[in-house]
This record gives sequence, C-alpha cells and structure tokens, in this order.
Amino acid sequence: MQNKRLFLIPVGLAAEDSGDWAGAHVRNAVLPLRRFVVEHAKSARQFLKMMGLPLQELEFEVLDEHSKAEDLDRLACWLESGDDVGLLSEAGCPAIADPGAALVSRAHRLGMRVIPLVGPSSIVLALMASGLNGQRFAFNGYLPQSPAERDVRIRELEERSRRLDQTEIFIEAPYRNDQLFKALTANCTSKAMLSLATDLTSPTEEIRTRSIGDWQQSPPPQLHKRPTVFLLLADQARSPNRRTRSANVH
Amino acid sequence: MQNKRLFLIPVGLAAEDSGDWAGAHVRNAVLPLRRFVVEHAKSARQFLKMMGLPLQELEFEVLDEHSKAEDLDRLACWLESGDDVGLLSEAGCPAIADPGAALVSRAHRLGMRVIPLVGPSSIVLALMASGLNGQRFAFNGYLPQSPAERDVRIRELEERSRRLDQTEIFIEAPYRNDQLFKALTANCTSKAMLSLATDLTSPTEEIRTRSIGDWQQSPPPQLHKRPTVFLLLADQARSPNRRTRSANVH
Repeated sequence: MQNKRLFLIPVGLAAEDSGDWAGAHVRNAVLPLRRFVVEHAKSARQFLKMMGLPLQELEFEVLDEHSKAEDLDRLACWLESGDDVGLLSEAGCPAIADPGAALVSRAHRLGMRVIPLVGPSSIVLALMASGLNGQRFAFNGYLPQSPAERDVRIRELEERSRRLDQTEIFIEAPYRNDQLFKALTANCTSKAMLSLATDLTSPTEEIRTRSIGDWQQSPPPQLHKRPTVFLLLADQARSPNRRTRSANVH
Repeated sequence: MQNKRLFLIPVGLAAEDSGDWAGAHVRNAVLPLRRFVVEHAKSARQFLKMMGLPLQELEFEVLDEHSKAEDLDRLACWLESGDDVGLLSEAGCPAIADPGAALVSRAHRLGMRVIPLVGPSSIVLALMASGLNGQRFAFNGYLPQSPAERDVRIRELEERSRRLDQTEIFIEAPYRNDQLFKALTANCTSKAMLSLATDLTSPTEEIRTRSIGDWQQSPPPQLHKRPTVFLLLADQARSPNRRTRSANVH
C-alpha cells in the first residue's frame, strides 16, 4: 500500500498574486487534492480557486498561531482519516516561519510521505538578491518589541555576524518597519551592510543593499506597512577566495 | 532611463529536471535574456535550451569557485557593457551556497536592479519538509573534513541548537554522506532530531525525520553519492504555544 502523502503547498507572497510563479509540477500536484490544512482560510481559498480547484468539494482545517497541542492531536487523526492532504501557509512556503512545522512533524511520526513543492520564500528571495553571504546565514524571526531589548539584540546580531561571517536575517511587523530601520542605523557600525527586500514578487518590489553609513546619508526608505525582510552582514575582510571550502548546495 | 537589471535565475535540482517547477513568470523573465553569468556552462546551457532560448545567440561568462577578485572586476564591467543579464547557479537558487553573491553585490554597487526569480532551493525544501523548527534556523555550509574537527563541530551545533532553539542545516560532498551520517549518530544525544532530505524534487526523493535514537535502531539510510541536506534540532520542551511571538513571514 502506498503511504498517504502530505503536500506542502506554497502560496504567493503578493496581495495581487496571479500564481504565475507556479509551474505544471505544482499545479498537477495540487489539482487532485480535496483536503487541506491552512493557516488562513480566506487566502487559501483564493489561491486554490486560482489553481482551478472546485471550492465546494474541498475540506478545510485550520492550523494557526492560536492552535494548541490538542488541536494538533485532532489534526493528526484527521490526516489519517482520508486521502492525501495539502498544507498551506498564509503566504509563502508552509512550515517556514509559520505554525505548520508541528503538523509536518506529526506526519513524519504517522509514516506519511511529506512532499515539498517549489514556490516563493521571501527569506530565500531576499537572501539571493541581497548579495550578502549566502554560504552561511541564520533566520531569526522577529527581534524583541521593547526598544531597549531590541537595540541590545541588534548589536548582538552584528557581533555574531562578524564572528561567524554569517548573514543575519530578521523581520518586523510591517507597521513597525520604519522604527526597526532607524534602530538599525542607530546601533550598527557604519561599515556593516544592510539589505532591505520590500514587496517581494510584487510590481512595487524594491531590494537595496547599502552600508549603514550609506543608508544614514540616503533619504530614508519607505517601508511603512510594506512587508520587508531585513538582512545584516557585519564588515570583515571578505573576498571570494577567502574561504577554503565554500558550500555548493542549492 | 530604466536601470539595467540582473535576473537571478534558479535551475532545477535533479539531473533529469524537466523545468516543470517553473511558471510563466520565470519563463517570461528568462526568454528575452541573451547574456548570462553562469557557475557551470554545461548545466546552464541545458537549462536555457529547455526554457526555449536560442543557444547560438547567447553570451556566457563564468563565475565559479575558482574566480578571483580581478575576474569579478571584469564581470562587473561586462554587466555594464550591454543589456540585462541573468545569473545562474549550477543548480538551485543563485547566490545561495554558491559563488554568485559577490556578483549580486557588485550589481547593487553599480545601481542595477536585482530581480530574484522563484525556483527550487534545496535548503528551503528540506527545511519545509523536515518538520523541524522553521521559526529559527541557520545554514552552515559544510562541516570540517577532518573527522576529529567534524565531531567537535557536530557537538557544538547540537549545543547551539539547544541554546537557540534553532534548526542547524548543513551539507556534505555526496560521496561522504554515509560517514557524516555515522558521525551524527555517534556524536548527538539520542533525543536530538535528525532530518535527511535526499534527491529533492527527483523521483527518488526521500525525506525522513527521526530522533538519533530511532536512526540508531533503523537500517542505515542509503545516502552514498545522493545529494542530501542534513538538518539537526536538539531536544527541548517544545510546543506550538511556547513562543510568545512567533515569526510570520514567508
């Protein structure tokens, strides 16, 4: 008997996404599915309708930041109770920077086959386009909300980036982006590189990489309420030949 | 005058890739391009031919692990000397775990617009499918080659994973995968979770997540010469509600 499958289905990043990033591989995998675990019902329905699925035939279960351990137990039973299931995040790749990983973990324990589909990840798009170190990087989620703690954390991240020669990636609630930008220019040293990737995959996409010193001397970027990925790389003597063994996976 | 553009073009991961992960967005962006900087000429030609480009009209420049600072200077001049350019890695997303980031950095300094296209990243596919922590993770490239240093590094990574509640991602040259797997089962504690993502996007794709203890009691996985992403998460009391502020970017 073939193992039951959990498909990890990416959703577009932009509000006006047309799904034109999705190739036949994604479409063919998604079309036969009728059962979905979703982070956000509205955006999931919108996406699946765009992919050509018959909404009235679909079953939905929700897994979001409010879900508790007992919800996961129930979802695990539901996974086992019928056909293949698709998992969708609100936007981007499920199980990265969203609550989906707990369900994927359950699927492994149930012996299901987990199949990730190719789609947009704002973290990866931002890192590719930053020109910062793509051989070593860390995604840190959100920084602390309190300004004092946030400033300490920013200085820690720059120090760690210098020590590990590692790009530090983080995010903020879009309405607080401008404050985070100000805090970065106030707390980082002038030669540190800061990349901002805003409105990825949308017609208003903007991706800029500058030193903190250059950012301080430029008109401030307009980030308010625009989804933005922040990437920081501390200054160090860098050259393409410095590393003896560079990574070569993709 | 519109800024010149550098398109970051993902390439399929599997040897027998048909490009069916690429949607109209990727195809439409790639088709008009005639100038490319590539990591590996053969795989780039193969991919661009599959995308329908007329090979005899294309110009190629190589940027690989042997490229030096003066090669980058020359490439930067070449970027400026003509139309839009595409950057391709040997496989997967350019400028992540490959030498491309240095060119992207030059493009930013030249004031070019950098446009990342959506495609497969083995790191992201492996992380999505692992069920391990996708709220905080670090990509570490290769571990040291010497067995003694590698074992120390493995123990450091498990310790850091526990301290930061962070998934540690790394790779190995495929012909040494079996040794790395043995070293992981010998050096990590039995409750640490190890995920192996092998032959991603290929018909022989296998993705398994188990505790080190379970791996020790299972028949060893067949990883020899099969591209594999390794993901490690140390044991800790984890629940979906533990974190007060979970990341929600995609």
